[in-house]
Amino acid sequence: MADRFRIQNNLETLRDFSAPGEEGTTRLSYTPAYRQAVDYLKKEMEAAGLQTWEDGVGNVYGELKGTDETAPVILSGSHLDTVRCSGYFDGQAGIVCALEAARMLKESGKPLRSSFQVLATIMEEGARFPNLTGSRYIAGENGEAQLDTLRDQDGVTLREAIRQCGFSGNLEMTCRKADSIKAFLELHLEQGIRLESTHTDLGIVETIYGCRWFTVAVNGATSHPSTPMNLRKDAGIAACTLISELAALVEEHYPNRATVTFGKFENHPNEINAVPGRTVFSVDFRSGKPEILNELEALLKEKLKAMESRFRVKTELTLYSDVPPTPCCAEFSKILEEQAAALHFSTLRMDSGAGHDAMIFAKHWPAAMIFVPSHNGLTHCPKEWTDYGNLAKGADVLCAAIRQIDKLD
Amino acid sequence: MADRFRIQNNLETLRDFSAPGEEGTTRLSYTPAYRQAVDYLKKEMEAAGLQTWEDGVGNVYGELKGTDETAPVILSGSHLDTVRCSGYFDGQAGIVCALEAARMLKESGKPLRSSFQVLATIMEEGARFPNLTGSRYIAGENGEAQLDTLRDQDGVTLREAIRQCGFSGNLEMTCRKADSIKAFLELHLEQGIRLESTHTDLGIVETIYGCRWFTVAVNGATSHPSTPMNLRKDAGIAACTLISELAALVEEHYPNRATVTFGKFENHPNEINAVPGRTVFSVDFRSGKPEILNELEALLKEKLKAMESRFRVKTELTLYSDVPPTPCCAEFSKILEEQAAALHFSTLRMDSGAGHDAMIFAKHWPAAMIFVPSHNGLTHCPKEWTDYGNLAKGADVLCAAIRQIDKLD
Repeated sequence: MADRFRIQNNLETLRDFSAPGEEGTTRLSYTPAYRQAVDYLKKEMEAAGLQTWEDGVGNVYGELKGTDETAPVILSGSHLDTVRCSGYFDGQAGIVCALEAARMLKESGKPLRSSFQVLATIMEEGARFPNLTGSRYIAGENGEAQLDTLRDQDGVTLREAIRQCGFSGNLEMTCRKADSIKAFLELHLEQGIRLESTHTDLGIVETIYGCRWFTVAVNGATSHPSTPMNLRKDAGIAACTLISELAALVEEHYPNRATVTFGKFENHPNEINAVPGRTVFSVDFRSGKPEILNELEALLKEKLKAMESRFRVKTELTLYSDVPPTPCCAEFSKILEEQAAALHFSTLRMDSGAGHDAMIFAKHWPAAMIFVPSHNGLTHCPKEWTDYGNLAKGADVLCAAIRQIDKLD
Repeated sequence: MADRFRIQNNLETLRDFSAPGEEGTTRLSYTPAYRQAVDYLKKEMEAAGLQTWEDGVGNVYGELKGTDETAPVILSGSHLDTVRCSGYFDGQAGIVCALEAARMLKESGKPLRSSFQVLATIMEEGARFPNLTGSRYIAGENGEAQLDTLRDQDGVTLREAIRQCGFSGNLEMTCRKADSIKAFLELHLEQGIRLESTHTDLGIVETIYGCRWFTVAVNGATSHPSTPMNLRKDAGIAACTLISELAALVEEHYPNRATVTFGKFENHPNEINAVPGRTVFSVDFRSGKPEILNELEALLKEKLKAMESRFRVKTELTLYSDVPPTPCCAEFSKILEEQAAALHFSTLRMDSGAGHDAMIFAKHWPAAMIFVPSHNGLTHCPKEWTDYGNLAKGADVLCAAIRQIDKLD
């Protein structure tokens, strides 16, 4: 059985690889804290008898060799980066549970036919570069071009960030071949309250919500607060009004079917003493149905047009990321469910409102997901919490499912 | 008569003492660009035959000695700091026109009885420390305590900023005695369109609008965008809704009587991929009537309370600055008006929607203001513009009024 204390020790050590001075864990991709976490993780993988390497963009692997080196590999893991002021479970728990599964497989003395690789992806969160960028490189959806066109908010290109963090930038060793992967299994926090509120041990994910991200720039004119309000071109009030109205519409008309989030908001010049002349904000639409994402995009465009005349501003809409709703592999989901049942753990079939690396993998290889309960549904915040016992159950199911998938032809 | 080319040369030189990389002029108090501007200004004052010094907090003086050193002095000037990405007239024009008046007085060969002091204040804008802080020190409204309690957004105390910029921090030489000042005259841009649209040369200010500034912090809970919207505690949407609703109310119910501006807005953690858990924004109310400022404050408090239950958040309201509406000195306003008429310049009596150093002076000494037209009313932005000929007219009126006031007992 999985050792909850090894899981706890790995997570609590990773927790402290964080940017100084921030509450909770802040580990943006390619930062010094990120590099420290990679080095620790590789050390732990090697201590477990795994062979380790980093690919060109910084995804980290630890491999337990199988008996047939020509067989496609079984992969499991999640992401090592966090948003700012995050908890220390999101992403990290999936890596640590895959590592615990590797330890159990190794300790069993019964080698697999396929090699098993523990994977820690980079850039899953959109906190520095667009979300899911690490797994997009593994899947070959991104190439050399994006190394130079993707920039963080300080203008640093992805290529520069990769070099600064000591990765090679070599994409040949990064992109995985279509026939080289047999399965990708990802364990992740639910980031909701369904499992906890129904006292269920684990979730089996059927569909991962699609998400469509936009950046909206509102261009008005900076002016002095003495300017009469009806003569201003106040970008901030235009943005606030759109956000307030669109949030109310989505909450009212799409309950349990879609969400909208406005996470980022930047006023310029952002002075008490100046009417904002330019405001830039993010829009994150999520839904399990592509047609709903299309409806929401149309609604946003309609609202932007209305704001232009109402507030004497111009708006620019940029699509930042678009990931369609993704079904998980039915066969492997069933294996996860059966192995959980064999271990007497309760399960629930559910959709994921959050995006995950598994969405990218699922387009190219069979992929399935296990959810563990999130206490109070809290996530992306320092109070994020999952009981270590739940994580051990998840690792047990991962381990059993890997053995089962290994037996399939 | 005033020399518009000297005025132009001074303003265009000052324009370029600006933080690098920003559009327009960005000269926050105590920055390297600010120090450069002070050094240039002192050099220009000395070239005009004035004796110069800086007070303890960095207000800069240039004095034209009068024949009676015991007589209270006549002061004229404005502020040298700017907001971010500002123009190069706001504040600076008032200093440069006072300096031009000093040059004319000196060149006339007819000394005044009172000494005349050109003044360049610091911290008039609220861009780094609270607004009007430089003139508050001159008036003795601030003391040692504020040197340690006032901090910029990076946590730097006023005392540290003063030292870093090479000023002494000595408040004894900063605070002016009640009987030491005979008049304060401030020339400033109108920052509106009344003068330009009525083809009037100069404005004579009767009342300066009061302004009441608040900081509002909305505390919700950061969560993942997969959280159902009706379970979120989204600080950002609460803030946007309040801003949108309050702006609409003030615009509808208080036209030409009050304004509200929300210049600053900060989301935390400010990630695309996280529901904002904390949002902090500024509220700037302005009106010529104290009772309207009270009404607006009550309206804000009512709205905050409504937001708390509607969006499951907590709010904190902090008064950041409160300056009551201020009438200018009727006698000196009349002198400004008469001197303008004698020079065949047209004038208009008006209120100032913006706050000015004269508001602080007017509480302690007789103070009056001249407005010059703002092209298109643009201000606090790189397109801010006033014709140099208008500024020369302003300097002529200042010079004539100073002679007139000097004759009064």
